[in-house]
Amino acid sequence: MADSVLSDDEVRAIDAYWRAANYLSVGQIYLLANPLLREPLAPRHIKPRLLGHWGTSPGLNFCYAHLNRTIRARDLDMIYVMGPGHGGPAAVANAWLEGTYSEVYPAVSQDAEGMRRLFRQFSFPGGIPSHVAPETPGSIHEGGELGYSLAHAFGAAFDNPDLVVACIVGDGEAETGPLAASWHSNKFLDPVRDGAVLPILHLNGYKIANPTVLARIPEEELVQLFDGYGYMPLLVSGDEPESMHRKMAAALDQALDEIAAVQRAARSGRTSARRRWPMIVLRSPKGWTGPKEVDGLPVENTWRSHQVPLSGVRDNPEHLEQLAEWLRSYRPDELFGEDGRPAEALRLLAPEGDRRMSANPHANGGLLLKPLALPDFRDYAVSVDKPGTTLTEPTRTLGTFLRDVVKANPSNFRIMGADETASNRLGDVFQVTDRVFAGERLPTDEHQAPSGQVMEVLSEHLCQGWLEGYLLTGRHGLFNSYEAFIHIVDAMFNQHAKWLNVTRRLPWRRPIASLNYLLSSHVWRQDHNGFTHQDPGFLDVVLNKKPEIVRVYLPPDANTLLSVGDHCLRSRDYVNVIVAGKQPALNWLPMDAAVAHCTRGIGIWEWASTDGGEDPDVVLGCAGDIPTLETLAAVDLLRRLFPELRVRVVNVVDLMRLQPPSEHPHGLPDREYDALFTTDKPVIFAFHGYPYLIHRLTYRRAGHANLHVRGYKEEGTTTTPFDMVMLNDLDRYHLVMDVIDRVPSLGGRVAHIRQRMSDQRLAMRAYTREHGADAPEISDWTWPY
Amino acid sequence: MADSVLSDDEVRAIDAYWRAANYLSVGQIYLLANPLLREPLAPRHIKPRLLGHWGTSPGLNFCYAHLNRTIRARDLDMIYVMGPGHGGPAAVANAWLEGTYSEVYPAVSQDAEGMRRLFRQFSFPGGIPSHVAPETPGSIHEGGELGYSLAHAFGAAFDNPDLVVACIVGDGEAETGPLAASWHSNKFLDPVRDGAVLPILHLNGYKIANPTVLARIPEEELVQLFDGYGYMPLLVSGDEPESMHRKMAAALDQALDEIAAVQRAARSGRTSARRRWPMIVLRSPKGWTGPKEVDGLPVENTWRSHQVPLSGVRDNPEHLEQLAEWLRSYRPDELFGEDGRPAEALRLLAPEGDRRMSANPHANGGLLLKPLALPDFRDYAVSVDKPGTTLTEPTRTLGTFLRDVVKANPSNFRIMGADETASNRLGDVFQVTDRVFAGERLPTDEHQAPSGQVMEVLSEHLCQGWLEGYLLTGRHGLFNSYEAFIHIVDAMFNQHAKWLNVTRRLPWRRPIASLNYLLSSHVWRQDHNGFTHQDPGFLDVVLNKKPEIVRVYLPPDANTLLSVGDHCLRSRDYVNVIVAGKQPALNWLPMDAAVAHCTRGIGIWEWASTDGGEDPDVVLGCAGDIPTLETLAAVDLLRRLFPELRVRVVNVVDLMRLQPPSEHPHGLPDREYDALFTTDKPVIFAFHGYPYLIHRLTYRRAGHANLHVRGYKEEGTTTTPFDMVMLNDLDRYHLVMDVIDRVPSLGGRVAHIRQRMSDQRLAMRAYTREHGADAPEISDWTWPY
Repeated sequence: MADSVLSDDEVRAIDAYWRAANYLSVGQIYLLANPLLREPLAPRHIKPRLLGHWGTSPGLNFCYAHLNRTIRARDLDMIYVMGPGHGGPAAVANAWLEGTYSEVYPAVSQDAEGMRRLFRQFSFPGGIPSHVAPETPGSIHEGGELGYSLAHAFGAAFDNPDLVVACIVGDGEAETGPLAASWHSNKFLDPVRDGAVLPILHLNGYKIANPTVLARIPEEELVQLFDGYGYMPLLVSGDEPESMHRKMAAALDQALDEIAAVQRAARSGRTSARRRWPMIVLRSPKGWTGPKEVDGLPVENTWRSHQVPLSGVRDNPEHLEQLAEWLRSYRPDELFGEDGRPAEALRLLAPEGDRRMSANPHANGGLLLKPLALPDFRDYAVSVDKPGTTLTEPTRTLGTFLRDVVKANPSNFRIMGADETASNRLGDVFQVTDRVFAGERLPTDEHQAPSGQVMEVLSEHLCQGWLEGYLLTGRHGLFNSYEAFIHIVDAMFNQHAKWLNVTRRLPWRRPIASLNYLLSSHVWRQDHNGFTHQDPGFLDVVLNKKPEIVRVYLPPDANTLLSVGDHCLRSRDYVNVIVAGKQPALNWLPMDAAVAHCTRGIGIWEWASTDGGEDPDVVLGCAGDIPTLETLAAVDLLRRLFPELRVRVVNVVDLMRLQPPSEHPHGLPDREYDALFTTDKPVIFAFHGYPYLIHRLTYRRAGHANLHVRGYKEEGTTTTPFDMVMLNDLDRYHLVMDVIDRVPSLGGRVAHIRQRMSDQRLAMRAYTREHGADAPEISDWTWPY
Repeated sequence: MADSVLSDDEVRAIDAYWRAANYLSVGQIYLLANPLLREPLAPRHIKPRLLGHWGTSPGLNFCYAHLNRTIRARDLDMIYVMGPGHGGPAAVANAWLEGTYSEVYPAVSQDAEGMRRLFRQFSFPGGIPSHVAPETPGSIHEGGELGYSLAHAFGAAFDNPDLVVACIVGDGEAETGPLAASWHSNKFLDPVRDGAVLPILHLNGYKIANPTVLARIPEEELVQLFDGYGYMPLLVSGDEPESMHRKMAAALDQALDEIAAVQRAARSGRTSARRRWPMIVLRSPKGWTGPKEVDGLPVENTWRSHQVPLSGVRDNPEHLEQLAEWLRSYRPDELFGEDGRPAEALRLLAPEGDRRMSANPHANGGLLLKPLALPDFRDYAVSVDKPGTTLTEPTRTLGTFLRDVVKANPSNFRIMGADETASNRLGDVFQVTDRVFAGERLPTDEHQAPSGQVMEVLSEHLCQGWLEGYLLTGRHGLFNSYEAFIHIVDAMFNQHAKWLNVTRRLPWRRPIASLNYLLSSHVWRQDHNGFTHQDPGFLDVVLNKKPEIVRVYLPPDANTLLSVGDHCLRSRDYVNVIVAGKQPALNWLPMDAAVAHCTRGIGIWEWASTDGGEDPDVVLGCAGDIPTLETLAAVDLLRRLFPELRVRVVNVVDLMRLQPPSEHPHGLPDREYDALFTTDKPVIFAFHGYPYLIHRLTYRRAGHANLHVRGYKEEGTTTTPFDMVMLNDLDRYHLVMDVIDRVPSLGGRVAHIRQRMSDQRLAMRAYTREHGADAPEISDWTWPY
């Protein structure tokens, strides 16, 4: 590797920039006041509680300074993803040096007083978080929970052909599963229509308390590993700043030349062969330039520099002196003017305007967000003359709509799925696009191409991470998954919801497209795959997050799914969860009624009710396609068994309507809720998920004591669809039995009918088991009269 | 690679065994009757609903047959982990061929009638699941949710020096994050005290609908990748059975020789250098030996053979004929006798007794389970003369106990943690053991060694997968984690709970040690790491699983933590979740009282109450250490503000006590619940987690309408501990305000006191923010009088 990329002056300039960022990082961790050390450092200048992560910060600053050089030299459009996001001080330091921080937060001005505020606010109550966070300009990535940086980086690069995403991968983070899988994202990047990702694996050797795996394998293995992942690894290793500056600059130039060559080759159409993308392995000491030893123990280049290398500084004069020395080692007087402003030489090194990584609009994706071009979803409606007489696969219908969404938004919309898009019956999208795959392709492959808007990999983590990166940089998308396996990304969902929760409070962060989940192949129709595929609990995880962020929809048929799908694609800053079936299911509502029903989110189905609009004897609530089917089948039975019984059917599409308005913005006012469910009549509620969830949403409602919920209670195996509902007491017969048990006017005199129901459900079960039959309840359906 | 390992006779014999397993696999997917094709195949012999996964089955059968040869030849103690566990027919076929299946399930005898039942029951209602499942003898691994096979395999090998774990890794599964990280498990395996894992990456090229990544990268890259992961990859590739048998046998012999050499070298003490463990890459066609084409489309070696290659066989005479041909291609008459029993030649090929992989006791770990040698936890008690006067770090106290558990059980107990064991203050265990690490070690490292009982890697997936494998093979352990990040393994927890749920119903599966989680660094003390580290929602995920399986404990101090910890380590077949703090916290109960309180799981703290054992005016419930602290601080305030007010304090350790006994075996009878909480008095409940959870557990209780819960409501940032409770209205002052708002006898005349509380909480917040102070509420504590 050439060592001559930089002139001596350039080395000095970059080193100064790096020293400034390091100084500002240390200052944030330690100082309350006296930011420029204009007076001797005293205990009262030190924060009473020392928080923050020093260890990774000098490495982050090092990369940032060097990337800045390349941005200026090549006029690059580049963003910076910090995997070791606990290095918050580094991100903030660079944003302040570039001026962005003061533009976004004017109180933290680019002068001595601003620097004092910058230091004081860090990891201080009422100030800013210790990690790279939504509050940090230039970031699309929170480094609190590790593992997602590289997936985010690739997501940001998709459909951004002119963007380079520099992604620092920590060697701790690199041990996580999601990160280990993310390296293979290079097989899903199209050098023609996508931008580039430049991973920089930062081997600083240690986690909180342990060495890292990748820092402790032979270099030969390390190179083989990244060769094997399909990269061209470039190694930069050492601890002497000057030579490291030269090596890093040379490696970056080589990497960026290589990226340009890959893109030129691909975009000129000269070659279709996959070329290796470069990546950099930077091996530098943890806590580089920090204290070498503290209290006789080695600190720099050990895990002891992970957080705060010098503790108890207020009370320990020796540590205080060591801190002063450490700060002075960066020679702040050379770096900052009398007024505290960064020296002009430094300011000239920073890129300008939107080219600053801290100000790049891609890192505040809402700035770039264009609404989707959406066809009218009504055009895809299933015709419904009479409820419950025709069968449609709801997700297949949605697929026809999505096909045209894909087509109308060729570089603005992607569908992610873990090898399940066709299985979830969205296959019509393949009429207009392909699955992206940059690996070898064979003649027998179908819908595989280097370019496409569907991304399939058998990793929910990658699907989620890519989509997050794509959305955070201002685009739109949908993640379709088997319902049970979306739990794999519970933690990622949590973090994204937290991100949205914070960004909604930051006026300078512009709204981004919602994260849309389509959960199909759901619990009630996993009779064939069995118990492991039956889990509707993602909804419970989702509803723990802030009500302002989360939305859950359970459209009962094809037309309601279309309406809900369209709504979600138009929304901003939410996480929308849609649960919908893929199996042939009865259509209930013509499109106009579906739109009206979805707009209300909850409502009485008068055509299915027998209360004639008057006071009912019992309310049957339902949410979800199969619970709706079983509920209407129960009404069918009740009509015949008890013609005089006044039954009201309430269907819920928008689950949040059940909560009081004090708990969720969609919450139905008590008066309206009571008008639907009554305050004194028994309510039998058939629910798609775990029954407790409905109680949790409704426990404040007046009629809650009368509410009886059926749902999934962890019963299931490989069996028939009917057996699935029966094992969980959600079947039509059991719902009738529930009505019998709870409507006092029926009590006593109908024990024989209850027994008949009990017999019939066993007979139905035996029938389906005997015939290994698929959903006999649908073909036997006799609704309506 | 030598091709001469097998004689021609051996090739024929292995091929016959393979054909038999393939025949039995196809039979399970298709046949209701006529198992031996003794009459012409007719539609009535075919299952009405065709379910199952053919694609991976021949590969699984191929490996199984070849491993059997090596078991016999080398007298190996080997188990078989099937990553592509949807290939259920293969596992069942082999267990039946080996006779194990009929031993476990006598009705499925090793004869024609048994074969008919074997076929019929597969993926049939009332029969067995379509995947490798708990019902499958010889398996510790369900392949429904992909990604965990290799971690399970390593967990099984730890502390089992004579065991070889053959692990088939599917190339679909290999795309998942957990699996991609699992390859690095070789850096955590000690060749001296642990057994060996032999990974066999099965590249059959396709998932449900897509090619796989690893099958479509150049072979050079593939080899580099596994070299880089630190293995010695051996390649076996082809589709012609005879040559494939020879190649596979040679590769296996080479791999097993290599394993023996690694172990010999390590165990002789001759070398401490890390040697590369072998692994095999088997590249064979998906759906190998199945139909090549169906309806003019290629099937073998494409994704079309993933599940059922020939559909509609009952109604499609052409498909029926093709199925008959396919079945006959295995020449069943050579493989099975007139009576349907496997031919003697086949039976002689199978290993015998416990050497059969389907009967190996390691795969039914409860058979091997030895109780832990446990020191008396009372010996580690913190002395408590008066409640609330001394401070202890609860997890540090537990650590002293765990240290001696580790010591007393050197090859039977492991602690897993994602780089957090010391941070969670269990560091005393390092007095007696080390962290296992087989990578390079440096002089500055602490407690790193090739051998140890603590396993730390920055991957919750690996910690969980290793521990599951360790427990399922009959050992004990504990997983300590930051509370927020345990969500990373939500899906893995779900699957393990489902596994336990099924095995509890299988008498031949012996009980195994519980999976114990210690969640520390919890939501209320992540004021320094901020919002991303604050999530108590794992409890909600846990409580969706079967009550028979799950237990949640919230010990409020050190002694109760000891008592709970001891209890969990003795339990079987549960998932125990313990949430406990690591920060200095007040001690409430002396050991005897702690044991009594934990045994009841819930109880009135009379010493803290002011109701004099009579009817209270208000009940303050609490669960969790910080909520208990705030509750007792609120009582302290109430005593001073309203000396006449009768306050009762109820502390909950075992969360399940809150549920009715109909819902959970630990549920408190209504009468006892009412005696604690009253049926008519206001209850202010301070809870560790999301407040809804308490409502969900108690909504059936008589006094539920009077229950008001405070807990985490997604408010938090980097701030002070007091600000954390205040942001979520869980602070002492707010609890007093809640009492004022809800106790009618106080109403009206105390508005000024309410205002004072409101002022005081703001003042306290300002104080902690101003001073960036750590938990001033503890040092200011004035309890008791």
